Amino acid sequence: MNVTFQRHPSSYNHWNLAVDGAIATVTLGVNPEVTMAEGYELKLNSYDLGVDIELADLLMRLRFEHPGVACVVLRANDEKVWCAGANILMLRSSTHHFKVNFCKFTNETRFAIEDAQNNSGQHWIAAVRGVCAGGGYELAACANEILLADDGRSAVSLPEVPLLGVLPGTGGLTRVVDKRKVRRDHADVFSTLSDGLRAKRAEAWRLVDEAVPLSNFEARIAERAQAAAEGATSDKKGIVLSELKFEKSETGYRFEYVSLDLQTAGRTATLTMRAPSQSAAEIAALSADEIRAQGDQFWALKAYRDLNEALLVLRFNHIEIGTVLIKTEGDADAVLAMDAKLAELQGSDWFVREMVLYMGFVLRRLDLTARSFFALIEEASCFAGNMLELALAADRSYLLEDEEGQIGVSVGALAGGDLPMSNGLNRIEIRFLHDEQAGRDVSGKQQTYIGAEAEKAGLVTYALDDIDYPDELRLAIEERASLSPDALTGMEANLRFAGVETMETKVFGRLSAWQNWIFQRPNAVGETGALQSFGEPTTPQFDWRRT
Amino acid sequence: MNVTFQRHPSSYNHWNLAVDGAIATVTLGVNPEVTMAEGYELKLNSYDLGVDIELADLLMRLRFEHPGVACVVLRANDEKVWCAGANILMLRSSTHHFKVNFCKFTNETRFAIEDAQNNSGQHWIAAVRGVCAGGGYELAACANEILLADDGRSAVSLPEVPLLGVLPGTGGLTRVVDKRKVRRDHADVFSTLSDGLRAKRAEAWRLVDEAVPLSNFEARIAERAQAAAEGATSDKKGIVLSELKFEKSETGYRFEYVSLDLQTAGRTATLTMRAPSQSAAEIAALSADEIRAQGDQFWALKAYRDLNEALLVLRFNHIEIGTVLIKTEGDADAVLAMDAKLAELQGSDWFVREMVLYMGFVLRRLDLTARSFFALIEEASCFAGNMLELALAADRSYLLEDEEGQIGVSVGALAGGDLPMSNGLNRIEIRFLHDEQAGRDVSGKQQTYIGAEAEKAGLVTYALDDIDYPDELRLAIEERASLSPDALTGMEANLRFAGVETMETKVFGRLSAWQNWIFQRPNAVGETGALQSFGEPTTPQFDWRRT
Repeated sequence: MNVTFQRHPSSYNHWNLAVDGAIATVTLGVNPEVTMAEGYELKLNSYDLGVDIELADLLMRLRFEHPGVACVVLRANDEKVWCAGANILMLRSSTHHFKVNFCKFTNETRFAIEDAQNNSGQHWIAAVRGVCAGGGYELAACANEILLADDGRSAVSLPEVPLLGVLPGTGGLTRVVDKRKVRRDHADVFSTLSDGLRAKRAEAWRLVDEAVPLSNFEARIAERAQAAAEGATSDKKGIVLSELKFEKSETGYRFEYVSLDLQTAGRTATLTMRAPSQSAAEIAALSADEIRAQGDQFWALKAYRDLNEALLVLRFNHIEIGTVLIKTEGDADAVLAMDAKLAELQGSDWFVREMVLYMGFVLRRLDLTARSFFALIEEASCFAGNMLELALAADRSYLLEDEEGQIGVSVGALAGGDLPMSNGLNRIEIRFLHDEQAGRDVSGKQQTYIGAEAEKAGLVTYALDDIDYPDELRLAIEERASLSPDALTGMEANLRFAGVETMETKVFGRLSAWQNWIFQRPNAVGETGALQSFGEPTTPQFDWRRT
Repeated sequence: MNVTFQRHPSSYNHWNLAVDGAIATVTLGVNPEVTMAEGYELKLNSYDLGVDIELADLLMRLRFEHPGVACVVLRANDEKVWCAGANILMLRSSTHHFKVNFCKFTNETRFAIEDAQNNSGQHWIAAVRGVCAGGGYELAACANEILLADDGRSAVSLPEVPLLGVLPGTGGLTRVVDKRKVRRDHADVFSTLSDGLRAKRAEAWRLVDEAVPLSNFEARIAERAQAAAEGATSDKKGIVLSELKFEKSETGYRFEYVSLDLQTAGRTATLTMRAPSQSAAEIAALSADEIRAQGDQFWALKAYRDLNEALLVLRFNHIEIGTVLIKTEGDADAVLAMDAKLAELQGSDWFVREMVLYMGFVLRRLDLTARSFFALIEEASCFAGNMLELALAADRSYLLEDEEGQIGVSVGALAGGDLPMSNGLNRIEIRFLHDEQAGRDVSGKQQTYIGAEAEKAGLVTYALDDIDYPDELRLAIEERASLSPDALTGMEANLRFAGVETMETKVFGRLSAWQNWIFQRPNAVGETGALQSFGEPTTPQFDWRRT
């Protein structure tokens, strides 16, 4: 497989974005012919990974190119079918690991919509007319509000259980009971009805916010959108997101600030991220206007777009890579200056705020990537500030103690919660669940810790001298490469997210894990399973033993 | 399979319970020959379901027969092997659904230990000498404190990932990072080390509370136990738990207060629970002494022991039953009087307190049972007080509206949080996540709701007249029986537990779901998988694709 994730509105196949002042209209209109693989057509506004990659791109552009948008109306180009969810033939013909990665990417995209609502002042209205089924309803449920046409025909549904023998796994079950707070028995009925619910009942059961008579549908959407956009100042001028250029060779990828080097022999990759090339003093002197003038070439945005693309190509295109060694290169002071500058301006400048939010999003994508990560803190590294998060997100970190006492890690100005994990905690906090005050001290003090001090402070796993370092590291990498990839995935998914849970961790932890289980079960994917039988003349044959 | 769950200390094969004043010593000494199935021996203090059933019995006896115990010392009879965890050959030869049910029962038993610590004043000390591996360490981690002999040999370990390609799924990963608050990178190292960690490092990394030199081991255990038991009044006289008698026939089970009737044709069962036979006035007049004099024949204990056994035989022995119809019979006023009496005395009387805790435990077992439950609220039913919890725990409830206006549901005195779910919420609260004040009003007012009022109040799913009721119910049962049992299990596991998460929901939701996934994966259970290869001359062959 060779997926890439760069798209542009001028060549979208499945979406349309129209911005009118503070109101954007996002319209789904899937081109059935343009698919990511052969063997299926995207009928009925159903989607595959390609549709979702465009949506992820669109979300980025809304935030960076159209910062004045205060309301997003989400709709479809087909009055009969709003969206039928993930394409069944696509799912059926996909491998297990593709299914899992596809669902994860889709889930991440859904949470990006909610992140824009919670943190960027976007109010989303799903304007639903026609059939809104499965992943379609899961998408609508990401909006702040759902208006459903009351026309005797339009309906919302989660037909996965009754029709396909799988779960509404793109957040559906969780958003129904946890976000929309639908009562569990109503949710039970809803999730087993293949035709779903029409307007009145859907409203009464909290599955939509408002049932709107068809005669009033357009007027009501406009009214709600106007209300949401009221008072918004749409004079913010966006920046332009240009195409991310990178070199791809047989041994990996080279982006401007990130390299991904693949060592297929040991199923290991090295992910290297580079610091800003500007000096700390230069960064400290930047004004918000100067930063905005740099646009998408500004390090904080460019480097994290590079990192995002690197993580995605790793996930989809190099599935046998099990261990990723994370390295950093460059001037730690420049990174700390970057943190300080971003922290200083994020409250007053939309562009800086969006960059910090995006950095948090990409780091969460790292937390959620099902590979083992070891951070290597060596000569000329810069695990400082936001780049220290890479080491904190890693499953382990190894620090080389040098005689000169140069190699260390530094806490920066964004450490206290500006780059949260999916559970809302910051990555220092989660290391100090046993002593929360100590954690606040470490994140608050913004100190540099050299060598053994970094281990003592709880920020790295091992600080080792130059005799032990290469041996320990080699052994650790070899050992990791010998372990069952499935056991590691399950282990990491549990160890990485201690502490409180959020809707996001519930979706990626519990809902996805159950879905993955079902994606392995003959009752879904066996020859006579429900997923395999859908649309065929045969009915599914189940092994009735309850587990 | 035909498992039953009644045991008695006089015939334990694997455990010894010795009570000395306020200190109990619980000693694991597995008889390798006494197994639940053929094909394996329980070497090295490893366990199978039979060992755990005895432990569950022992926990009940500690709470009811030895209420004066304030400290429990958990130890093993073998100085070299404390406990090697679940038996691998047993796991290997088990079906998928047995593995899943076995792990669930074991997890429930582990949480019962912690419940006794949190609510019954028991302080548990795991006194570990020798190898404490996998499920052995998971058991030790249930104690309030772990003392590990510092003898150069004793060690704690979670070798499931490196040796077996599965997870430490009986709470291991979760308790390490969430309860013991071991740092995630330390937990990562620990969980991939097949030999684990010995005393000093285990203490430094918070995996044990104290490394104790062997020369001082016994003295230190005694000292800690004395400290924990200090001030305890051991004059409470326990009651005797006699054997639970029941009739078993081809069509089901009849206990004193619970019947389980199996209709194999539709893969449906009816679970009927009966109210106390005493009148409300008689119950209201009871003193704590009189209740204690009734001992294990008192309704609140006896009926819930019956329910517990019914749920367990259903889970293990009747795995094709997919839908369970819950009915109640008897005098609702008597049940409400029971609730009032228990609420009145639980703060002052240990026996009443233990009964309420046990009722909560059994109701959580119902929440966690992977079958669909429909509550049927019909003539002569008594969904009142604690028995209303059965309807609230069900996935749906159907109420027959009678013309006389007799049929309804009643909220009792324990509704406000005395019978909590695994997430710590009460079952009314979770229905009112959208309006918490309304939930508090309903649980606080202790009202009776007749017919449509019950639906309006949010306490039942459907109130239907005598024309619609039989049709709707028949359709619902038929529809449920047609759905994929796996999809239903995953759906119910997600819809039942909205709201906050606890360590308990994390274990049953996330950890168990990942483990179940792994239990389906060829890398664990395939012919060349790690679980199949353990102890064999061959090494496992993995499909390296990361998922």
